[in-house]
Amino acid sequence: MKVGFIGLGRMGTAMAANLLKAGHAITVYNRSPDKARGLAELGAQVATRVSDACRGEAIITMLANDEAVHSVVFDDDGVLASAADGAVHISMSTISVALSSKLASAHAKARQRFIAAPVFGRPQAAAEAQLFIVAAGAKSAVDDCARLFDAIGQKLFYLGADPPAANLVKLSGNFLIASVIESLGEAIALIGKAGIDPRAYLDVLTSTLFNVPLYKIYGGLIVDRKFEPAGFAAPLGLKDIRLTLAAAEQLQVAMPVASLLRDRFLTLLARGGAAQDWSAIARLSAGDAGLPDAVLPDAGPGGAATEHRSP
Amino acid sequence: MKVGFIGLGRMGTAMAANLLKAGHAITVYNRSPDKARGLAELGAQVATRVSDACRGEAIITMLANDEAVHSVVFDDDGVLASAADGAVHISMSTISVALSSKLASAHAKARQRFIAAPVFGRPQAAAEAQLFIVAAGAKSAVDDCARLFDAIGQKLFYLGADPPAANLVKLSGNFLIASVIESLGEAIALIGKAGIDPRAYLDVLTSTLFNVPLYKIYGGLIVDRKFEPAGFAAPLGLKDIRLTLAAAEQLQVAMPVASLLRDRFLTLLARGGAAQDWSAIARLSAGDAGLPDAVLPDAGPGGAATEHRSP
Amino acid sequence: MKVGFIGLGRMGTAMAANLLKAGHAITVYNRSPDKARGLAELGAQVATRVSDACRGEAIITMLANDEAVHSVVFDDDGVLASAADGAVHISMSTISVALSSKLASAHAKARQRFIAAPVFGRPQAAAEAQLFIVAAGAKSAVDDCARLFDAIGQKLFYLGADPPAANLVKLSGNFLIASVIESLGEAIALIGKAGIDPRAYLDVLTSTLFNVPLYKIYGGLIVDRKFEPAGFAAPLGLKDIRLTLAAAEQLQVAMPVASLLRDRFLTLLARGGAAQDWSAIARLSAGDAGLPDAVLPDAGPGGAATEHRSP
Amino acid sequence: MKVGFIGLGRMGTAMAANLLKAGHAITVYNRSPDKARGLAELGAQVATRVSDACRGEAIITMLANDEAVHSVVFDDDGVLASAADGAVHISMSTISVALSSKLASAHAKARQRFIAAPVFGRPQAAAEAQLFIVAAGAKSAVDDCARLFDAIGQKLFYLGADPPAANLVKLSGNFLIASVIESLGEAIALIGKAGIDPRAYLDVLTSTLFNVPLYKIYGGLIVDRKFEPAGFAAPLGLKDIRLTLAAAEQLQVAMPVASLLRDRFLTLLARGGAAQDWSAIARLSAGDAGLPDAVLPDAGPGGAATEHRSP
Repeated sequence: MKVGFIGLGRMGTAMAANLLKAGHAITVYNRSPDKARGLAELGAQVATRVSDACRGEAIITMLANDEAVHSVVFDDDGVLASAADGAVHISMSTISVALSSKLASAHAKARQRFIAAPVFGRPQAAAEAQLFIVAAGAKSAVDDCARLFDAIGQKLFYLGADPPAANLVKLSGNFLIASVIESLGEAIALIGKAGIDPRAYLDVLTSTLFNVPLYKIYGGLIVDRKFEPAGFAAPLGLKDIRLTLAAAEQLQVAMPVASLLRDRFLTLLARGGAAQDWSAIARLSAGDAGLPDAVLPDAGPGGAATEHRSP
Repeated sequence: MKVGFIGLGRMGTAMAANLLKAGHAITVYNRSPDKARGLAELGAQVATRVSDACRGEAIITMLANDEAVHSVVFDDDGVLASAADGAVHISMSTISVALSSKLASAHAKARQRFIAAPVFGRPQAAAEAQLFIVAAGAKSAVDDCARLFDAIGQKLFYLGADPPAANLVKLSGNFLIASVIESLGEAIALIGKAGIDPRAYLDVLTSTLFNVPLYKIYGGLIVDRKFEPAGFAAPLGLKDIRLTLAAAEQLQVAMPVASLLRDRFLTLLARGGAAQDWSAIARLSAGDAGLPDAVLPDAGPGGAATEHRSP
Repeated sequence: MKVGFIGLGRMGTAMAANLLKAGHAITVYNRSPDKARGLAELGAQVATRVSDACRGEAIITMLANDEAVHSVVFDDDGVLASAADGAVHISMSTISVALSSKLASAHAKARQRFIAAPVFGRPQAAAEAQLFIVAAGAKSAVDDCARLFDAIGQKLFYLGADPPAANLVKLSGNFLIASVIESLGEAIALIGKAGIDPRAYLDVLTSTLFNVPLYKIYGGLIVDRKFEPAGFAAPLGLKDIRLTLAAAEQLQVAMPVASLLRDRFLTLLARGGAAQDWSAIARLSAGDAGLPDAVLPDAGPGGAATEHRSP
Repeated sequence: MKVGFIGLGRMGTAMAANLLKAGHAITVYNRSPDKARGLAELGAQVATRVSDACRGEAIITMLANDEAVHSVVFDDDGVLASAADGAVHISMSTISVALSSKLASAHAKARQRFIAAPVFGRPQAAAEAQLFIVAAGAKSAVDDCARLFDAIGQKLFYLGADPPAANLVKLSGNFLIASVIESLGEAIALIGKAGIDPRAYLDVLTSTLFNVPLYKIYGGLIVDRKFEPAGFAAPLGLKDIRLTLAAAEQLQVAMPVASLLRDRFLTLLARGGAAQDWSAIARLSAGDAGLPDAVLPDAGPGGAATEHRSP
């Protein structure tokens, strides 16, 4: 298929490379064009304007946040103005339910098709084409893009015709991951202060009830206090919890664990943790327990991570 | 080995049966003696007094709560007064860290040995000798009882010489399970109110990030609203969170998710849910979201579950 | 002074009447013009367009929310386009810090002056010219409007040259009131379930530590379960907590009590309480405690209150 | 009246002095006898054993916690064993509802009378006989002691025949005070980080909605960061919240603000704040917001305050 791919962070670059390997004709666009070089060597066309990446049957966006997606789609030179009748915009970013709704309407009005198809998986999984894809939108559109999804992920879950459903599922999935981090952080602070070896504790957990990579990965980061470099940075964690809470507020659903997580991320950022992995909220439990090695650096400018990496 | 086994709930009965099958000489005791019948048919001796179950090299207790263990151990006719010098008391119940400390001291003073060895696994796992055992106490004592643990569980984790460590690990494990229930409850309320099929949602979760029986089991109970009969009743959930918080308070560790769980269990009990599975706290998220089928029965006497079942 | 007054809810009507009584020349505007009749009888000019209320030295806006203020100011016929050079826009509504910032910039660019001057006090206090006014903006502008503030309130607090400061103080004040409601709700549920007379309890509190109208008023509403008609409706409470949390997020300040309040208001609305006073969040504590007379009506359409009433 | 007075902390000493001034015959007892000297000069008899302070018509206990009261009452030489038939034990300490129940039963069995009569007021109010007294117990017993209460306090609230009711009211009052501290701490952190002068902010609050000494005192301590010396030390705050939560658990009442307060006090203690006033939990909000001057000292031994001072 002839496909435009917009957004070349670590996730997007890996996904675009897999599309190329699968034989698709890819035109890539990124705001800072140097990120496109490696893909050009793999055979990608490089667009210098968004509109030039919108000539194919499908346009994939994989961007950091609502603002970036909004601008790429609605700007004068954007996807909406440039894509052909019947073309499919596949939004794979983690964006708000509200923006997804707005995109669905705008594309329908412009006689274009729209699929929300966010992914689960960290950059390594993206590189190995092992992402899980959660898609919603017209069934025919999803079917038409089946070969694209095959090239990127290991499995696709179809969630019906309403695109925002996929975004909500993705957001709530990130909420669940963050809640695991928080609970592990509390438990490991407790165990550690009791003088029990946290590694032995984590081994018990992940050999028994929680025998799954997620707990091993995040438990390991917490136990090893290895929060940099960030796999998925704290400001992105805050963003996803904020979007979850925004969707929940719209639906009038109280989510006390999500509220707690929001407070945790704000505290982490206020205390200088903007460059750390989102699992660094576990440091707050340790710090509140008075564990001496958990002291956060003083609040400072804290370079906010800007790249999109899916957890 | 010659072993006394005290406490024949669903878990204890299954464990005692497996010890018999493995060829050990078991004397069983239960306050209500009728529960011993099945085991007698399998070859168990039946004691009519606690002291008669304390004649062997090891005495295993598997009881509902601190009060039961305290009475069985410290009563005039109890384990402490009856066990021989050098005999090992293996406490497999989920009890408080404080009681475990007290038992360790009392047995040491009485020249008896003490192991805390709580288990992870539901009654089915107990029946299949597939429990996970978390043991702490003198290494030599644990080694001496290795064949007993082999007969009951699939794996033993040794956590060092200090018995309360095993109890704290067990309690914190139950805290982590309860936190999974709470987070799933919130996420499923959100998804459900958005009109997305909760079963499809659960399938996404448990096929991807949370591909582990724990999430499947509890997610399934929540989605199917199948909270009775209780596999592990709400009052036991409250008890374990209370014991976790008590240990955390002793250590001066704040655990906000545990605090939230305590409030949830209290609310569930106050609103008549004492006979329901502890996963019924998820009904509160649904009810708070105004989902109509989630209305709890009016507060009533609510038969509190009394049997000990390990989650 | 020649003054335009935009927004004739219960609060605005009372304030405009007091300005008339003090001898000012008032032109009033309200979207539904029938609300202006009473004021016309007192001598007010009635404008049929916003711009016609913008001819004076000062324009006061007293509207329900950000959306209303935004539209009244930025519409083609709005305050910004219509007010004279040097005229003062006094925004007395409870609006967001972000909108206040935006208004300050826009008016400065248009060579107009801007004061944020939200008020504390319920409609009765407005009628009696007993409001407390919290003002921020250029000192000279506030001084120029001193006679207006004198006619409306009993005291003015000047908070400096930066208008959003006044809005943040107002929002945080409403947060403090809501936190009092929540804590009283929890305490009264506890006392009531213990069988102690809540009125006697409230008498103890308000005769001793909490001898102040706020506690008497809200304690009385809770004890009497008198949540309708709403003095300040639940959706307005949610709005103010949302704006507080938004300002706090911008500043990276975690506010766990505000997070809890947000969850309470969402639950109250989800369960059909949109027409009730914001103190009805206390019903949730009673309901969670299983107190039988605290059962909320089933979730329903729940006419959302639309009028602006300051707590 | 002939009265025994047991417990000579700052509160108890002031109360005993006022009883002496009012002409009552007082025999005082304190574990460390040097505290009795000043009262001896005012005319008090000094007992060297608890039993010697139990010869009168009434025995007042004013002690730090449950443990102290339990020991003074139930020890061999204690109040229960020593007081005459019909004598009244007036427990003015802030103790648990459970202990109050136990005292009521034990005294009834011993044909003695029992009043729970905790007080509101700080040491200064005790010195000026301006305490508020919340009493419950047999009406005739309270009437018989009316002159004692007159000598100590400015007003007595009678809460019925069941002594634990008075203790629950006292505990819930302290819960309400702590919730005010927490909310003020959050609001002041917000205001402070926004660059608004916290003293001007507090002036707004306490001149308007919160015009009551409680808000002035605690707001002032927070704004001035004056947490030492402690008027009411953090460990006592934790104790009272723990007792509130224990009573609430018994009654199955969830109190999320109390749960949050418990976490706050644990964190304050874990981070070295044991010698600080309980209002120092406000430092945690400031610290979480990254406000630089709010950094707590590293966790250390932290001399726990031991004296009883009523808030």
